[in-house]
Amino acid sequence: MAVYTDIDDDELRDFVAEYDIGTVTGCKGIAEGVENTNYLLQTDRGSFILTIYEKRVDARDLPFFLDLLDHLAGRGVPCPPTIHGRDGRALRQVAGKPAAVVTFLQGIWPKRPTAVHCAEVGAALARLHLAGQDFTQTRRNALSLDGWAQLVEATASRADEVAAGLGAEIEREIDDLSRQWPTDLATGVIHADLFPDNVFFMGDKLTGLIDFYFACTDALAYDLAICLNAWCFERSAEFNSTKARRLLSAYRQVRPVSDAEIAALPLLARGAALRFLLTRLYDWLNQVDGAMVKPKDPLEYLHKMRFHRRIDGPGAYGLDY
Amino acid sequence: MAVYTDIDDDELRDFVAEYDIGTVTGCKGIAEGVENTNYLLQTDRGSFILTIYEKRVDARDLPFFLDLLDHLAGRGVPCPPTIHGRDGRALRQVAGKPAAVVTFLQGIWPKRPTAVHCAEVGAALARLHLAGQDFTQTRRNALSLDGWAQLVEATASRADEVAAGLGAEIEREIDDLSRQWPTDLATGVIHADLFPDNVFFMGDKLTGLIDFYFACTDALAYDLAICLNAWCFERSAEFNSTKARRLLSAYRQVRPVSDAEIAALPLLARGAALRFLLTRLYDWLNQVDGAMVKPKDPLEYLHKMRFHRRIDGPGAYGLDY
Repeated sequence: MAVYTDIDDDELRDFVAEYDIGTVTGCKGIAEGVENTNYLLQTDRGSFILTIYEKRVDARDLPFFLDLLDHLAGRGVPCPPTIHGRDGRALRQVAGKPAAVVTFLQGIWPKRPTAVHCAEVGAALARLHLAGQDFTQTRRNALSLDGWAQLVEATASRADEVAAGLGAEIEREIDDLSRQWPTDLATGVIHADLFPDNVFFMGDKLTGLIDFYFACTDALAYDLAICLNAWCFERSAEFNSTKARRLLSAYRQVRPVSDAEIAALPLLARGAALRFLLTRLYDWLNQVDGAMVKPKDPLEYLHKMRFHRRIDGPGAYGLDY
Repeated sequence: MAVYTDIDDDELRDFVAEYDIGTVTGCKGIAEGVENTNYLLQTDRGSFILTIYEKRVDARDLPFFLDLLDHLAGRGVPCPPTIHGRDGRALRQVAGKPAAVVTFLQGIWPKRPTAVHCAEVGAALARLHLAGQDFTQTRRNALSLDGWAQLVEATASRADEVAAGLGAEIEREIDDLSRQWPTDLATGVIHADLFPDNVFFMGDKLTGLIDFYFACTDALAYDLAICLNAWCFERSAEFNSTKARRLLSAYRQVRPVSDAEIAALPLLARGAALRFLLTRLYDWLNQVDGAMVKPKDPLEYLHKMRFHRRIDGPGAYGLDY
C-alpha cells in the first residue's frame, strides 16, 4: 500500500490531455498494490486507474502485460482494457516512469472469501486460460525453478533467522521439485498472482480480475495451484477442501482438465507455495528502513508447502476424479 | 499515506446499509491523510469518502468536527457535508472505531501552488471564518501555547539530535512567544491545518476544503499565519511575497482585517511555524518501526520560524497597510 511517485499538476494535465478521456475531476493515490503506484483518476467521463510502473517491473515486459489485457478483455474476460492515447499508444511516460491508464472496474475484493467466491474464481480462471490460447506473445515465468534457485541463493545464508531449519527445508524442497517438476502439461498464458486482492466482486458475482504484472507463459494447472494456496486456506491456516472442490469443479466446467494435470496438482501446489515463500522470505530479509509496505509473513507459505507435501494425492482437494 | 484499518466485506455492507446512499460498487483505501484511514467509497449513486478515526483523533471532538462541516457547507463554504444515516446520525462505528461518511469533493490538490491558488485560498479562508461566526460550538486549540510547552518538554532532551542548538532555539522562541502572544484579536472557528493537500482545485478554481480535524476556536489571523507558512514558501525554501500578498489581499476583500491583526501577523506566523516544527520534531523523534507514514522534515519549519523572526514587520508579506 503505497504511492511511490507523485505527479505534478501540469504533468498530470499534460498526460491526461494525451487521451480522449475528458477533464480531470479527481486523482487520488490508492493504498493498494505493492509493486506499482496506482491513482484512481476521475474525469467528467468516468473513472480510470493510472498505474505508474516502479522499478520492480521490467519495462520491457510492459507491452506483453498491456496487450494481454486488451486481448483478454476483447474476449470477454472481466479484466480492465487499457485506454489508448490519441496517438494509439497505451504505454507512455509520466514523472519520468512508464505509465498506463486502464478502465476502472467496479467491485471490491473479498476480505474473507467464501466457497461461492472460490467457484467464481475457478470459472474466471478457466475463461482466462481459454481466452489466452490465441494470444501470440509469450513471456517466460521468471519465478519458476530458475528464479527460485536464485532466490534460494540470495536467502539461504539467513533463512534460519526466520525459522530454525528453514534453509535446509527449502533446499530439500527445491531438490524434490526440480527432479519431479512436470514439463508436459498444457501451457498458455497464466495470471500467476490471482490472490483475493486481485479479484473484484459485487456481492457473490465476480466483476473483475486485475494486476496482471506477473502474467507469463506456463502450465495452466500451475495457475490453479496458486489459487488453491491463495483462496482455500482459512485465516486459521486450515485447508478448506470444500472451497478447493468448488474452485476446481467450477474451473473444470469451463476448461476440461487432463488426468496428468490433476495428478500434478499437489506437486504444483508445493511449487506455488515455495515461490511465494521465497519471495516473501527475500522481502522479509531485505526490509528497507522507512519502507511504506509491510512485508508479508513468509511462514504462512511454509505451512502451505508442508500441507501439500503431506497429503496423499489430489483427493485432498475435495476432487472425485 | 496509510490505511490503518481494514473493513471486512459483511461489515462494509452492513455499515453502508445504514445510509441511503445506494449499493457499493467500489471501496479503495486512499494513500493520503496521516491521521485517519480514508476510503473512496463508490456506490451506484455517487462517490463518498468513508473516514475511520484512528487513535490520534479524540472521539469526543468528533461531533464538533462533523457538525462544523454541516454548518459550513450549509453556508456555502466548499467543504464536504456529512452523510447522515437513516437514523439521522452522522457519526457511527465500523471495525470497532468511530467512522463517518462525507460527500466526495471534486478536484485535486495543487502539488505546486501558484499565486492564483493562493488568492483562491485566501478568499476561501475568509469565507470559512465568516461562515463560522454563528457556529455555537467551541473547541480549545490543543496545539497553542500550552500544547507547545508539552511538546517542548517531550522533545527537549533529544531536539539536538536533529540539529545542533535546536533545543535552545525552541526554548528561546517559546519564551518570546509566551510573553508577546496576542489575546485580543478576533476569534472564531479556524481550520488550523489548511495545507495545499487539504485544498482541491479544478484548474485555477478552488473546489473544496477538507480535513477539518484540527479545527478549533482561536484567533482568525492565526489561520492566516498558518496559510502564509503552508502556501507562500517555495520548495527552494524562499518566501514568495507575491503569493503572500495575493493570499492576504484576497482574504481582506472578503473579511476586513484589523490593524492589530496585521501587526500581529509576524508573531502569529512564528507561532504557527513553531507549532508545526514541534509536532514534526515529535514525530521525527518517535518514529515507529515499520510505520507506513514517512515523517515530515521538522527543519523546514525551523527555517520558516527564523524567516518570520528576522523580518522587519508585516510589510515583508507584500502588504501595503
